[in-house]
Amino acid sequence: MSAENSDNKNSKKYLKDAALVIKNGKILDLDTQDLIFKKYEAQNLINKQNHVLLPGFINSHTHLAMSLLKGVADDLPLMTWLKDNIWPAESAFVSKEFVKDGAALALLESIQGGVTCVNDMYFYAEETAKIIHQAGIRGFVSNSILNIPMPWAPTLEECFLKAEQICEQVKNYDLVGATIAPHAPYTNDLESLNKAKLLAEKFNTPIHMHVQETESEVQQHDLLYQQRPLDTLNQLGMLSKKLMAVHMTQISESDIQLLKNTGVSVIHCPESNMKLASGACPVDTLLKNNINVALGTDGSASNNNLDMFGEMRSASFMSKLINQDPESLSAYQLLQMATINGAKALGIENTTGSLEINKSADFIAIDLSDPATQPLYNPISQLVYAAHAHQVTDSWVAGKLIMKNRKVLNLEAEQILNQSKIWQEKISKLLKLE
Amino acid sequence: MSAENSDNKNSKKYLKDAALVIKNGKILDLDTQDLIFKKYEAQNLINKQNHVLLPGFINSHTHLAMSLLKGVADDLPLMTWLKDNIWPAESAFVSKEFVKDGAALALLESIQGGVTCVNDMYFYAEETAKIIHQAGIRGFVSNSILNIPMPWAPTLEECFLKAEQICEQVKNYDLVGATIAPHAPYTNDLESLNKAKLLAEKFNTPIHMHVQETESEVQQHDLLYQQRPLDTLNQLGMLSKKLMAVHMTQISESDIQLLKNTGVSVIHCPESNMKLASGACPVDTLLKNNINVALGTDGSASNNNLDMFGEMRSASFMSKLINQDPESLSAYQLLQMATINGAKALGIENTTGSLEINKSADFIAIDLSDPATQPLYNPISQLVYAAHAHQVTDSWVAGKLIMKNRKVLNLEAEQILNQSKIWQEKISKLLKLE
Repeated sequence: MSAENSDNKNSKKYLKDAALVIKNGKILDLDTQDLIFKKYEAQNLINKQNHVLLPGFINSHTHLAMSLLKGVADDLPLMTWLKDNIWPAESAFVSKEFVKDGAALALLESIQGGVTCVNDMYFYAEETAKIIHQAGIRGFVSNSILNIPMPWAPTLEECFLKAEQICEQVKNYDLVGATIAPHAPYTNDLESLNKAKLLAEKFNTPIHMHVQETESEVQQHDLLYQQRPLDTLNQLGMLSKKLMAVHMTQISESDIQLLKNTGVSVIHCPESNMKLASGACPVDTLLKNNINVALGTDGSASNNNLDMFGEMRSASFMSKLINQDPESLSAYQLLQMATINGAKALGIENTTGSLEINKSADFIAIDLSDPATQPLYNPISQLVYAAHAHQVTDSWVAGKLIMKNRKVLNLEAEQILNQSKIWQEKISKLLKLE
Repeated sequence: MSAENSDNKNSKKYLKDAALVIKNGKILDLDTQDLIFKKYEAQNLINKQNHVLLPGFINSHTHLAMSLLKGVADDLPLMTWLKDNIWPAESAFVSKEFVKDGAALALLESIQGGVTCVNDMYFYAEETAKIIHQAGIRGFVSNSILNIPMPWAPTLEECFLKAEQICEQVKNYDLVGATIAPHAPYTNDLESLNKAKLLAEKFNTPIHMHVQETESEVQQHDLLYQQRPLDTLNQLGMLSKKLMAVHMTQISESDIQLLKNTGVSVIHCPESNMKLASGACPVDTLLKNNINVALGTDGSASNNNLDMFGEMRSASFMSKLINQDPESLSAYQLLQMATINGAKALGIENTTGSLEINKSADFIAIDLSDPATQPLYNPISQLVYAAHAHQVTDSWVAGKLIMKNRKVLNLEAEQILNQSKIWQEKISKLLKLE
């Protein structure tokens, strides 16, 4: 069985008894088994009984390396969480090794949860790029730009240099790209935002930025500029199809018009927004205005996992709750947000994000024979409302198998877990967690 | 490592390198391995490296058999969902066999998710009791009471007869009890509610009832009685420690005083309440008023799973979102809601719900070596915010192993799944799902 992309709204959006033909990393054909077996002779036939084939999940916003900080501080106000926990740990430890080990751990979890493409924002992005390449999945990385001195980029000039360098470095990797990632309007001045825009234009790549994550951020921006962050970005010419505006829990009527007219993609991170009490992005309204909305997990320090199944459910629950409407967001819309909409946001919708002929063979197999997903009336409903990450059994990117029966093939799980224990000891000491 | 119950608020509520001694189905001792190994010689030693031992989850409100209707209808208004889908299917199919097969399927999923005690509300409860007994877990069942003729109880008299019979029938089973379950104030008149109260007193057992699930329900009650449902229940003398008031998304100031003064337990079903857009129970306020709040999944037709990990997370997210406060509900409070608070609601807190000497050995082992739960700074945070149901490896009830390495020992998984496929075909035909 295989889910396919389509625009009409109801639930019959999947193909029963389907077969997928892969050649040279791409989907050569996709149809019922009857028709496919008449047309082709397979060199290598894989039969997945009781499984659904789904385009792999695209995690449209994350900070992979922060998996090493997962659970250091929970149930705290944002500023206590940041200032007393996350920032001290990052200042003390963030390094090439931290990013390499953290991203590896995060990719293990991501791949086991059916993610075939990640969009990362962090530092030492060349390490993240390397491990994404090694894992064999698709990804975008970035060295984020902040007007705040960091041990790894003491000046703004250095930030920009590194943001530019990574755009060059990823050219070594087939499946890895880079975005330009000014951290947020409140951590960048106008000049720096403008410079980021020019850099994104130079490399013809998306801008990946936190925007209007909290109410206080919008208020502070208003004090400084007498307008909303989105208005400032608009004046700078930064609103376009190339902008991935992450979080956007604060949305006014005028924001909706701006987003709609400029083609900005909103990246929704419902679990992070709820856990940190940042607010609720009105996804349903955005989608009704034809604004593209994709899903991200955010980093594991705020979520605390990289599970796109959970994120789809949480997006649905949040939307139904705040709109007092059980029809708000359908299971199919949620699947789109976790797949094709992410591809659109990243500008790779012609390459991946759905199972269509000529697209890259980026897909996952999910075993629905589990008691949790039986009986099976509607696979789309079951995937969104009942399935769990551990039911993903196999994963392919660009036609290559990267997970087989839940074993991630290109990463050394044992070594990665050992490294994470070493980090745990160091970080626990610093934060006095023991 | 083993989580233990305690009343102070911070996170050091677990014992490292712990050992648990079981004798005659009870916890004989619980301490660090060093001390335990000096004191005891084990007849049967089980070593669970990298695991947490936790009191098994108590699912304080569910309709097990409805697992056979999981996913028949999603993202629909409550009345369309009920009238066009759930009720027609129930009217056509609910029978002894339906309940037996549905409850078995639900117990498979429940046990694999770490549940050691369920509180069920449905029909043909003797079938549910039988399968709970066979599975070897703990449970409460009920034949629910409605002033609406049902194929399985055409008259109210028959409802009461069956509600009473089940209280007698469960006496055959050590670990199974029965509650009295008037469905809701809006499906029972005053006489019937009063009769239910007397029946609960006769059998000295809890009353298990949906109360104030939606706003319209409260409004309709007001039109009929010029008061809130909770006031009516109070006048009938039904508010006491013996009442499990399920859902309670609509809570006024006066409700809080009533709940507090009478000792009613509120059963919170966050995922069902969000998915059906019923509303948001103000759990944080209830807990601050020392009102006991326990967690339930509701039935799989509305949730669509029986996963207590998801329920803890959703309860946290919902509370933080509606209170705009990231400190609202701590991970530890969520674990309590999923364990000991359920035991208190059911009146079995001296028997189960926490790992304490002399309590029944009802506990689960959860493998935290998964990449999703590493590194491990705080097991309580990790259990609530990062762990998944499939990390539960083993489960014991009354000292007996009921799941070993994820294999549920006393249920025939294959046969149960085959039966559920047969139901799927029948139900699909009726609801024209194919």
